[in-house]
Amino acid sequence: MNIERHGTTGRYSDIVIHRETVYLVEIPQTLSADITTQTSEVLASIELSLKNSGSDKSRLLQVTLYLPDMADYDAMNAVWDAWVPPGTAPVRACIAASLANPGYRIEAVVVAARLAQ
Amino acid sequence: MNIERHGTTGRYSDIVIHRETVYLVEIPQTLSADITTQTSEVLASIELSLKNSGSDKSRLLQVTLYLPDMADYDAMNAVWDAWVPPGTAPVRACIAASLANPGYRIEAVVVAARLAQ
Amino acid sequence: MNIERHGTTGRYSDIVIHRETVYLVEIPQTLSADITTQTSEVLASIELSLKNSGSDKSRLLQVTLYLPDMADYDAMNAVWDAWVPPGTAPVRACIAASLANPGYRIEAVVVAARLAQ
Repeated sequence: MNIERHGTTGRYSDIVIHRETVYLVEIPQTLSADITTQTSEVLASIELSLKNSGSDKSRLLQVTLYLPDMADYDAMNAVWDAWVPPGTAPVRACIAASLANPGYRIEAVVVAARLAQ
Repeated sequence: MNIERHGTTGRYSDIVIHRETVYLVEIPQTLSADITTQTSEVLASIELSLKNSGSDKSRLLQVTLYLPDMADYDAMNAVWDAWVPPGTAPVRACIAASLANPGYRIEAVVVAARLAQ
Repeated sequence: MNIERHGTTGRYSDIVIHRETVYLVEIPQTLSADITTQTSEVLASIELSLKNSGSDKSRLLQVTLYLPDMADYDAMNAVWDAWVPPGTAPVRACIAASLANPGYRIEAVVVAARLAQ
């Protein structure tokens, strides 16, 4: 069995790891918060999940960011740009789309690499 | 050549397998059907495609579900939750977005693991 | 260190390669252009990026196309269908969604395979 999962419910897992590839989806914690706070929360969740996966934020491969309101783009980027370690940015797409909970101003789908076991 | 494809047309393949990773996109078959029927169809298609790939539904890694109408979320989840084998749920994002055919109420983009060859 | 990046800024990389998997995101260059021109630009960018990654357009695995206006679907497909080498089409999803720049009529998120090193 070469699939490792963390935070598994009947619907989803928080983290799935297959060989050296880590898959995450992160949502904000504070539904009433603005984009700056929610982006900080999502990035902190990514960072913690990667730490728990034997990876870290310098090993991101592909990130898709969904923003229900593209007017949040610049404020999101200010948090993102300060968070990404220099020289390690992943490929990234930013898509305007509504999300499952109207309180989410951002959702992140992440693929990262962990260190070889 | 280490890429395996099934159902390849000039536009897309139904299944692409690279090393131990399986990529699928599934759409519903009955365009006039409600979300319960269409979700069942999409999940049955995923299950069959995974079987044809040397994988199965307990080996999902990452799933992105697109729903044109997020009002379908709860009914979709009822089918999903009953379908996922306990303890094996993938990371999952659910995004509101219109799709190529207005008759699609759901589309699924799937990454799974097959057993090592 | 087994992650290779090209075109890395403080925000994103143009290309990220991990083991044999290549990740790309491509946007059009001419913001005032129609879907035919923008699709041609995006596909040419994919082709060049894959060449620079030790891959090529016959080794696409998974492509997600975002179109702000699904009325562009047929014209996009005409360019796509002529571009994909016969017998090598990836799995593909086409999603209606607005993008970061209102001048983009298409954005492509690509996963491909490079030849084993």
